[in-house]
Amino acid sequence: MKTITQATDQINELIKQYATTSINEPISLYSPMYYILNIGGKRLRPAMVLATTSFCGTAMEEAHEAALAVEIFHNFSLVHDDIMDAAPIRRTFPTVHEQYNTNQAVLSGDVMLIKAYEHILSYEGDVCRQILEVFTKMAREVCEGQQLDMDFEKLDAVTLTDYITMITYKTSVLLAACLQIGAIIAKKDVHVQRALYQFGKNIGIAFQIQDDILDTYGQPEQVGKQVGGDILQNKKTFLYLKAIELADPKLMNSLSSLYASDYQGTNEEKIAAVKKIFNTLVVKEYAIQVMEAYRDLALSHLKEAGLSDEANEELTAFADYLILRSL
Amino acid sequence: MKTITQATDQINELIKQYATTSINEPISLYSPMYYILNIGGKRLRPAMVLATTSFCGTAMEEAHEAALAVEIFHNFSLVHDDIMDAAPIRRTFPTVHEQYNTNQAVLSGDVMLIKAYEHILSYEGDVCRQILEVFTKMAREVCEGQQLDMDFEKLDAVTLTDYITMITYKTSVLLAACLQIGAIIAKKDVHVQRALYQFGKNIGIAFQIQDDILDTYGQPEQVGKQVGGDILQNKKTFLYLKAIELADPKLMNSLSSLYASDYQGTNEEKIAAVKKIFNTLVVKEYAIQVMEAYRDLALSHLKEAGLSDEANEELTAFADYLILRSL
Repeated sequence: MKTITQATDQINELIKQYATTSINEPISLYSPMYYILNIGGKRLRPAMVLATTSFCGTAMEEAHEAALAVEIFHNFSLVHDDIMDAAPIRRTFPTVHEQYNTNQAVLSGDVMLIKAYEHILSYEGDVCRQILEVFTKMAREVCEGQQLDMDFEKLDAVTLTDYITMITYKTSVLLAACLQIGAIIAKKDVHVQRALYQFGKNIGIAFQIQDDILDTYGQPEQVGKQVGGDILQNKKTFLYLKAIELADPKLMNSLSSLYASDYQGTNEEKIAAVKKIFNTLVVKEYAIQVMEAYRDLALSHLKEAGLSDEANEELTAFADYLILRSL
Repeated sequence: MKTITQATDQINELIKQYATTSINEPISLYSPMYYILNIGGKRLRPAMVLATTSFCGTAMEEAHEAALAVEIFHNFSLVHDDIMDAAPIRRTFPTVHEQYNTNQAVLSGDVMLIKAYEHILSYEGDVCRQILEVFTKMAREVCEGQQLDMDFEKLDAVTLTDYITMITYKTSVLLAACLQIGAIIAKKDVHVQRALYQFGKNIGIAFQIQDDILDTYGQPEQVGKQVGGDILQNKKTFLYLKAIELADPKLMNSLSSLYASDYQGTNEEKIAAVKKIFNTLVVKEYAIQVMEAYRDLALSHLKEAGLSDEANEELTAFADYLILRSL
């Protein structure tokens, strides 16, 4: 993945410079932004903007401002999501509302969203307008996805279709927009833009389903957090929702009592019992099938985009890297 | 003020329609937006967009989307400011974080900022780009102003110059941007745009200084809230900062003990004692002088803009309406 590696190196250097040498007043407003940008993350999204621009035949440097915009936007959404989830830790560091306070996190998040627009406005003419349209629609959908996620926590009747809509909005549209923005900067036509958008969107969905599978069935070193964490938090994951769909009344009862607030067993007992029901209903295998279907769909869109063989190889490898962390 | 009245009627109707008939999903995300838009406010800012467009010779209807954008932006900033100030009431109704909850207020605020951009993107070409540039700079400055306001609460050494910068960013640049956006929609050149921006900015500063004066020296029916409220809340107003600047060591000591957290007197005693010091230092008269200087500066910029006599009369009357609520 030569180009993607190069893109990742470039965005890492760019953000390091941005977050350590920019001076914006008042400091108290901007230091939370530099803080969250400095504590890392994989920078997959801005790297995709740079790499796609390059795959479409334009120098990566032309995409620097757009890459900064999507990374700042992504971090804005993390800062505000962390407030909503009352999350204390992000990337092993205190979240912004913990490190500073909630007011700082609200306001610096706001200014990050605005800064993202400022970076996009460094482009001119039709390129600028097209990026703005893609970005603004994506930003709205990310908010809608976060809302759906919060709504689902309180709802009993969530279908798998609802779930796919939620993960599409909450996470996939951003990756999709990154690819489309790369194509826009390289002045590719709408057909190529849409194909790359669909590639990113479907890879994003496959990634989320895989994430659900790994949380329950992965090895600790793959998951990077406690295996079974979703079960302990009663999360409505792909596996859980499919199990609900398939369960007969008896299994449904068992699931309900395992997910009840007055469940008395240990964590290990709960994880084992839920997994046993998942295994009986073969939901893991179903999830893998669906995940692979989204991956295949993504790759068919990639083919439609008509990039070079080298670009297709790199993007396919990237998709596999994202999704196929081996089970 | 025929045109301004007409503009106000039009924006009231427009927002009523928008906030009662628009359907956006998920409802839980958008209902706080409709709620805050429905509970009123004077709609001065969007009315200024419409009226300025008309004064510059273009039909008000062309400015509808921009007027919606600035009103939605303004309400976004209120929703997030109310979280930061832990304010329970806005326009006699519960604030959004009270009526819903803090998470809803954060997220629906975010989507309002994005919706404002969507409305601006309904314009095409150079008009769109110019509005976006003015709007984005203004939005960033509003955040910076809110941050300065929060910083000043904790700082001892705030100068009058710092204070003017803070109120300029926190409130005046939005009014200024509304006038400039009206001129942009009417395709006026940069000279006219800047003159109208400066008119709005300086009127906004004069308004804020007058607001400080009225809070301490106004009649209850003018102030619409408790007279002396700023003193009771130890706010660093124009009057207070000027008093600090002028006070000799003895008066400074008196002021310090009146504003100390362990002050023991009644509210009435505190207000009376602070006003006595303000009167000794003649800070009210100084504030009126400065306020009038900003008003005069505003009117000289209005003249520069070269609008019709009728437009100048209406905008001058508007300035007086904003500022000169009689003392």
